[in-house]
Amino acid sequence: MSNASNRLIIFDTTLRDGEQSPGASMTRDEKVRIAKQLERLRVDVIEAGFAAASPGDFESIKAIATVVRESTICSLSRANDRDIARAAEALLPAERKRIHTFIATSKLHMEAKLRMLPEQVLEQARNAVRFARQHTDDIEFSPEDGSRSDEDFLCRVLEGVIAEGATTINFPDTVGYAVPEMFGETIRRLRERIPNSDKAVWSVHCHNDLGLAVANSLAGVMIGGARQIECTINGLGERAGNTALEEVVMALRTRGGYYNLECGIDTTQIVAASKMVSQITGFAVQPNKAVVGANAFAHASGIHQDGMLKSRETYEIMRAEDVGWAATKIVLGKLSGRNAFKQRLQELGIDLESEAEVNAAFARFKELADRKAEIFDEDILALVSDEQQSQESEYYRFVSLEQRSASGETPTAKVAFYIDGEEHVSEGKGDGPVDATVNAIEGEVGSGAELVLFSVNAISTGTQSQGEVTMRLSKEGRIVNGVGADPDIIVASAKAYLSALNKLHSKIERVNPQP
Amino acid sequence: MSNASNRLIIFDTTLRDGEQSPGASMTRDEKVRIAKQLERLRVDVIEAGFAAASPGDFESIKAIATVVRESTICSLSRANDRDIARAAEALLPAERKRIHTFIATSKLHMEAKLRMLPEQVLEQARNAVRFARQHTDDIEFSPEDGSRSDEDFLCRVLEGVIAEGATTINFPDTVGYAVPEMFGETIRRLRERIPNSDKAVWSVHCHNDLGLAVANSLAGVMIGGARQIECTINGLGERAGNTALEEVVMALRTRGGYYNLECGIDTTQIVAASKMVSQITGFAVQPNKAVVGANAFAHASGIHQDGMLKSRETYEIMRAEDVGWAATKIVLGKLSGRNAFKQRLQELGIDLESEAEVNAAFARFKELADRKAEIFDEDILALVSDEQQSQESEYYRFVSLEQRSASGETPTAKVAFYIDGEEHVSEGKGDGPVDATVNAIEGEVGSGAELVLFSVNAISTGTQSQGEVTMRLSKEGRIVNGVGADPDIIVASAKAYLSALNKLHSKIERVNPQP
Repeated sequence: MSNASNRLIIFDTTLRDGEQSPGASMTRDEKVRIAKQLERLRVDVIEAGFAAASPGDFESIKAIATVVRESTICSLSRANDRDIARAAEALLPAERKRIHTFIATSKLHMEAKLRMLPEQVLEQARNAVRFARQHTDDIEFSPEDGSRSDEDFLCRVLEGVIAEGATTINFPDTVGYAVPEMFGETIRRLRERIPNSDKAVWSVHCHNDLGLAVANSLAGVMIGGARQIECTINGLGERAGNTALEEVVMALRTRGGYYNLECGIDTTQIVAASKMVSQITGFAVQPNKAVVGANAFAHASGIHQDGMLKSRETYEIMRAEDVGWAATKIVLGKLSGRNAFKQRLQELGIDLESEAEVNAAFARFKELADRKAEIFDEDILALVSDEQQSQESEYYRFVSLEQRSASGETPTAKVAFYIDGEEHVSEGKGDGPVDATVNAIEGEVGSGAELVLFSVNAISTGTQSQGEVTMRLSKEGRIVNGVGADPDIIVASAKAYLSALNKLHSKIERVNPQP
Repeated sequence: MSNASNRLIIFDTTLRDGEQSPGASMTRDEKVRIAKQLERLRVDVIEAGFAAASPGDFESIKAIATVVRESTICSLSRANDRDIARAAEALLPAERKRIHTFIATSKLHMEAKLRMLPEQVLEQARNAVRFARQHTDDIEFSPEDGSRSDEDFLCRVLEGVIAEGATTINFPDTVGYAVPEMFGETIRRLRERIPNSDKAVWSVHCHNDLGLAVANSLAGVMIGGARQIECTINGLGERAGNTALEEVVMALRTRGGYYNLECGIDTTQIVAASKMVSQITGFAVQPNKAVVGANAFAHASGIHQDGMLKSRETYEIMRAEDVGWAATKIVLGKLSGRNAFKQRLQELGIDLESEAEVNAAFARFKELADRKAEIFDEDILALVSDEQQSQESEYYRFVSLEQRSASGETPTAKVAFYIDGEEHVSEGKGDGPVDATVNAIEGEVGSGAELVLFSVNAISTGTQSQGEVTMRLSKEGRIVNGVGADPDIIVASAKAYLSALNKLHSKIERVNPQP
């Protein structure tokens, strides 16, 4: 494919680089749900994980390669045969597959991390691409820490891997150090200097440490001639995260006359994708986040409101509905039947695989409708999320809770829950009802995990809404997020704590590299 | 001042444009606390508000002009004599003062909003600057919606206002529509075409709707030759917010060799400023926010950790301590005395004005220490914030709470609180204990406000930490945030609800323009 084309490839790495955020690790089923939403968004390439990192990553990629048919599925791998073979194996079921291999090329990384000479790195890069070609024609290569690498050396490495058959060259700003005009110029120079550069599509992968990820990506495209942008939903990713898909796509679209590039994204799926990723990872989106923040389309000031009434364009450059914002509607209540519920699930893009799953979700829906008069779309999403989560890992499971606090007394809680199929009841005291609840559970489980984050967000508006609690636990260097939803936030807290314990219980050992 | 200088002026508008975010409105005392922190940060100019907008805004500017001595204090005003006179009056106590006047110059805004002819706009702009000069020599002028205005017309307006004595020309991208290279080029062309352009310092004011605010600001400086950047803490501001001070300052500093500009900011005060603004406004900062997000300096993946151990620079371009991140320390406990407490307040940069205030805060501290073994810096900040809040508006005040929930029963709550000095006790039921608590309060108050946002964040780590609850209420088009902190999150919720009712009770009528 030539870089002269106006077609821009959107490569989403929410499930790989995004998942590397501390606390953002996801289960296989959660990854499959996000991958399906990315397919609905029509991203061109889904980086589904890093197959050699862990058995869990391998299974997730395989599951995604099995169910997603429209997007190309990609696995990351280090530049060695073992990693590449694992990637190829996980990708076997895919309709379209890509192997993405990488090795560091900066002096600092080669010396401090790899302890290899440049010639060894060059040789290993070429060998890796040659080996990967045995499994697929679609090969991406990344020189890790590219923006801090020696340019002459980079030219030799990249020319070498293109000669071996790499079809995409991804230029990463691994540490978020680049500034737009220099970053774009570097890519332009590389493309000019490398004789076979037109045999590959060039790509950018930027981090947002200095708030410049979107601008760097666009400079890579406009100045550098790149035709692939790597990004994540909500800008998820290590440290300050990656280029946010929603921002770069809406910049390209809103300023289409200037950028003059085509991308295949269905922007009306953006908000649904954002909410799903936020709900699954427990990473809240701040109100003043571009495109997907709660305030992104809200106008407060008197003069603005006046201007808006007179002419909408005075203060609005995008339409909320173009990115999938819709007024929250009351969709169902306690009198709604199974068919209405099932139809709403379909409209929300939720595929429950079996009738048994629909029945289980419907039973929970009825239970919720008994306690809550108005059921919003957000409630249904939380309910299904909760349902799918409890199905996949049932070692710890919530049964019931009783708690009380009063000024001047020590708060108490009594929690009933299953451990491996057996019901336990435990009482605890604490500084507040949440602390008492956690102490009650810990009194029985004794996990010794440290609670490092606790947050609650209402799922819809009003206090009669369900609260969604995120608890992040840390134990022996592993960090997991548990999420629980319920109209009673103390119950939601108990569910979140048990969900986090379930994640700690499934001991996944993994390594997470980052090009 | 010439634009050839390498000195970059940092103009903070957290208290004006930031406050225009729906829900971010602050009381006078809150604004003064933030202004003092901005002075510690060493921002050059503090835009303290818009004097003519409301009596509250006027008083806030006056209070800030009285206590801040190092930074220039600025008030916004529309381009009319009344607004400018109000601004001048509010700024009277200031050591250094600036009046910032603006009028829209784009065809769309002139026709749809102002309903004025271009010649009338030009005339009004010149008159406004001429009138403002009677009050101070430091005059800033902004052509609202500048990035969508006709360039020939802009040249005439800007030349005219510089001739009248405007010393700063601010070029705003009001709707966040600009792309960096074009934005920078526009400013460069304007400066070239306007004969007296070198008589003013040029400034940029960008919004982040497309994720490009930082890049646009830097392009305005590097390509356009601007020497002032307008920004806010945490990127607070309408819709997706303004250029984030912490991002643009750290980009300039981290890439100092490239940008080669001097700015006076004390970066070690950044995290404290971010936490203060987040706590006062109730606007959470997302974990993957650059510089000030909880994950901004966290590294999760195995390869990264390995790299970090071998050489810190492999994955880190800034040092956490340079922006004021410090490991949370246990500072005080129940045995700590008044002197230790007072000393810690001073170290945290908290100035309590009278001994009575110190005594009140110390009494609360002892009360908290009875219930919570370890008192962190964050707890002290929340406690003082709570204290100052309750001092300034005591119409509704929390006394005590009793609540209970149990699976299968309807949650109940009994709340005691003051209304205008008289104690009331009220009981309520609801879907959860928070809902029951709000229903109990509403049963007595009957405000009819709608709860539009509910969120909880733990102040430090662990469930024995205090929970900080934010509740956003909406009533008749007004939106207010209430914040409450307590180890018991149901108590914190009651406090937050009462604090929001206090804000609704102080009926501030205002208009909020936005250049």
